[in-house]
Amino acid sequence: MAPQTMEFLARLRGALGTAVSTAPNELADARTDRSGYLSPGVPVAIVTARSIDDVQVALRLASEFLIPIVPRGAGSGLAGGATATEGALVISTTAMNRILEISLADELAVVEPGVLNQQLSDQVLDDGYIFSPDPASKAISTIGGNIATNAGGLLCAKYGVTRDAVLGLKVVLADGRLISTGHRSVKGVTGLDLTALLTGSEGTLGIIVEATVRLRPIPAGVSVTIGTFFESVTAAAAASAAITATRLKPAVMELMDAESLLAVDALNGTDLRSRGAAYLLIQTDGPAAADEANHIVALTRLLGGQSELSTDPTEGERLLAIRRSFHPALEARGSVLIEDVCVPRSALAAMFAEIELIGLRHGLRIATIAHAGDGNLHPNFVLEPGVSVVPDAVWLAAGELFEAALNLGGTLTGEHGVGVLKRRWLGAELGSDSYELQRQIKAVFDPLGIMNPGKVF
Amino acid sequence: MAPQTMEFLARLRGALGTAVSTAPNELADARTDRSGYLSPGVPVAIVTARSIDDVQVALRLASEFLIPIVPRGAGSGLAGGATATEGALVISTTAMNRILEISLADELAVVEPGVLNQQLSDQVLDDGYIFSPDPASKAISTIGGNIATNAGGLLCAKYGVTRDAVLGLKVVLADGRLISTGHRSVKGVTGLDLTALLTGSEGTLGIIVEATVRLRPIPAGVSVTIGTFFESVTAAAAASAAITATRLKPAVMELMDAESLLAVDALNGTDLRSRGAAYLLIQTDGPAAADEANHIVALTRLLGGQSELSTDPTEGERLLAIRRSFHPALEARGSVLIEDVCVPRSALAAMFAEIELIGLRHGLRIATIAHAGDGNLHPNFVLEPGVSVVPDAVWLAAGELFEAALNLGGTLTGEHGVGVLKRRWLGAELGSDSYELQRQIKAVFDPLGIMNPGKVF
Repeated sequence: MAPQTMEFLARLRGALGTAVSTAPNELADARTDRSGYLSPGVPVAIVTARSIDDVQVALRLASEFLIPIVPRGAGSGLAGGATATEGALVISTTAMNRILEISLADELAVVEPGVLNQQLSDQVLDDGYIFSPDPASKAISTIGGNIATNAGGLLCAKYGVTRDAVLGLKVVLADGRLISTGHRSVKGVTGLDLTALLTGSEGTLGIIVEATVRLRPIPAGVSVTIGTFFESVTAAAAASAAITATRLKPAVMELMDAESLLAVDALNGTDLRSRGAAYLLIQTDGPAAADEANHIVALTRLLGGQSELSTDPTEGERLLAIRRSFHPALEARGSVLIEDVCVPRSALAAMFAEIELIGLRHGLRIATIAHAGDGNLHPNFVLEPGVSVVPDAVWLAAGELFEAALNLGGTLTGEHGVGVLKRRWLGAELGSDSYELQRQIKAVFDPLGIMNPGKVF
Repeated sequence: MAPQTMEFLARLRGALGTAVSTAPNELADARTDRSGYLSPGVPVAIVTARSIDDVQVALRLASEFLIPIVPRGAGSGLAGGATATEGALVISTTAMNRILEISLADELAVVEPGVLNQQLSDQVLDDGYIFSPDPASKAISTIGGNIATNAGGLLCAKYGVTRDAVLGLKVVLADGRLISTGHRSVKGVTGLDLTALLTGSEGTLGIIVEATVRLRPIPAGVSVTIGTFFESVTAAAAASAAITATRLKPAVMELMDAESLLAVDALNGTDLRSRGAAYLLIQTDGPAAADEANHIVALTRLLGGQSELSTDPTEGERLLAIRRSFHPALEARGSVLIEDVCVPRSALAAMFAEIELIGLRHGLRIATIAHAGDGNLHPNFVLEPGVSVVPDAVWLAAGELFEAALNLGGTLTGEHGVGVLKRRWLGAELGSDSYELQRQIKAVFDPLGIMNPGKVF
């Protein structure tokens, strides 16, 4: 270790004491996330911040010593954005996990960044509220991480993404200064929208140390769940488009392809695949949930679907379980690389067709699940057990996926972020002028370039 | 006119021909907007752009000659943001008024910036869709202007502000380069959210030349309108808080104070003021509109309100007309300065009390209307006929209004923007670090400082 680095660590320990760790297992854990990506580098230390002040102290020292900073929440990211790099200081905000305030009158909460998404929803459930952003990781992911990645989820088509739920932020900049953005009011247009700019910035602009977020009333009435099998994924995609055309807004509309059903069958010993080549899972909510569901069932049957409808929570849970088994089913097969393209809703069937062609071309089995209501597809590559390096064929296929999504008017990441894994394609999507503007905006926040270097840009 | 300026105009005319005007009446018109503010300066010319190319040509020349640029839509702004300054080139996008595409399958439209807000909604009404942002100016304001100011309106509490309806933009930068931001998909997290950053940037970063915006399905069912008189504005504000606490979401919830009722009475010869000191106007929509309205009426009566409910459109229109008469009523009294503070909903009654105190302190009659569902208040100062300069007492009172809103956790502008009129208070709200960051971000987009100088910053 260089003398400079040793001096940095000594100063850091002097200032923050036991909040600083260099335990090899902790450093190793910080090199990866839920994408399975393992950073080739090793960080110098991890600060488990207990307060805004801790974060400020650490960043002032990092600026002084030009130490790269990797902000990190629960490590549940899917693009490598929070993975520790060589010589970096990891700043974990998981221990800043207090809900500071809940105001039902203002339908907002003020939280520290380490509060788990589900923890906040649980806290306000009995009052009839929910924290709306619902990434699949909500039980384990932090609100700070959700904001840093602008996380999506199953309910976005109806209830918006994380950005729509953030009213204001406190952020520590690279040099240790603390800024506040936004307000407690639901509207406000004073100057540039730094709250939105910071949301989804993946730790490249600063560290989120507090957030004022919206709470959303849970709709009245009982949710209705509909599970429908189709003969082809194209038929299922056409049905989802037809449902959009009714102008009804299901809360959930998830589409699983044949490969996904095969994986779930293998896990659970079921025979879903024999019932169809695609499964469309829908939930309606609100006061007209039953009427809307009946309308949707009639429509899906007309379009060749085999539908089951349930207003009973237990029965509905059985229909949902098929969707819930998806990720465990793939993980049972091997190490999973999950992609995240998003296309205009009308291009959903076209994107499924592109995925099938890409799979055939590279001899790869790709299991795809889509948030059909917003055109967000997650094609999953499974690496055979024992394979630790992503094969070239998978990277080639991923590149073709992104190209296809861009050609259809979409994007290479709908909700997971760029991180490390999609960095090589970012320029192609943004174009060189936008890319350069973004780099310069980053430099305004972080002139020394120490905030999460090598991520996104 | 300086030789440099003459050369600039000659080059501009050579390139853009009849799109360039120096007609004195047109130059004079461009010095003001709907706030009544009159810029002390006179612009050198107006370009009425017919295409993106026109905008690019004009901005390249302006960069070469260091001519300030004032982007302008319909001139319906309320903060002076689009008013022409001395020696500036005004670029009007009103003639770029084509709807380029409507995709109901993707629930989006692609429009030129000069398309009127109402024009787009009219176009999709028969298909059951609406362009959601609904500033009071929607019949006359352009979508480009709505985006540049992140316009609000009556429906925001339930359906969001303009930013929530923008998927992507094409923007010409100060040096004439054209960039695209966002996507046609409803989700996407590639890099920093430049679409959100540009929304509400009031012409300081570039000129919006095309927008991809969301269309929203009109809710099923018939809207129900409720008009309620209360004995005090505090009682009305308490009722609106109680309605929020029911977790029902009215589409509209507008609150008028006693001074507003007096003004409407004077205009229409009615005697509203004798029926109460505050009026709360509510509309519910969607499949449960009637149930929700009945619930709300029961609640308002319990809280001392005198309610009328109507499911009949004509009758509902009569209740709405009271609200609609507000602006004409004030304009009949004299020249109006409309303010735009926004506070957390729970602070609505407190803010009304502050306004009353400020009015008493300065001997001013302030008529206030509030979008009660989102805590956005519009206190209106009326200048006596013949008074053309805003009296010091009004500026003092305005300053105290902003201070009170900030102290209550709010903001000095909920939906109108900073423009010229609120510039002096911006630093106080943002704090010096945020303010400086914003200025530096502006410099990234506009290093020569020619984009709408003197506005916002």
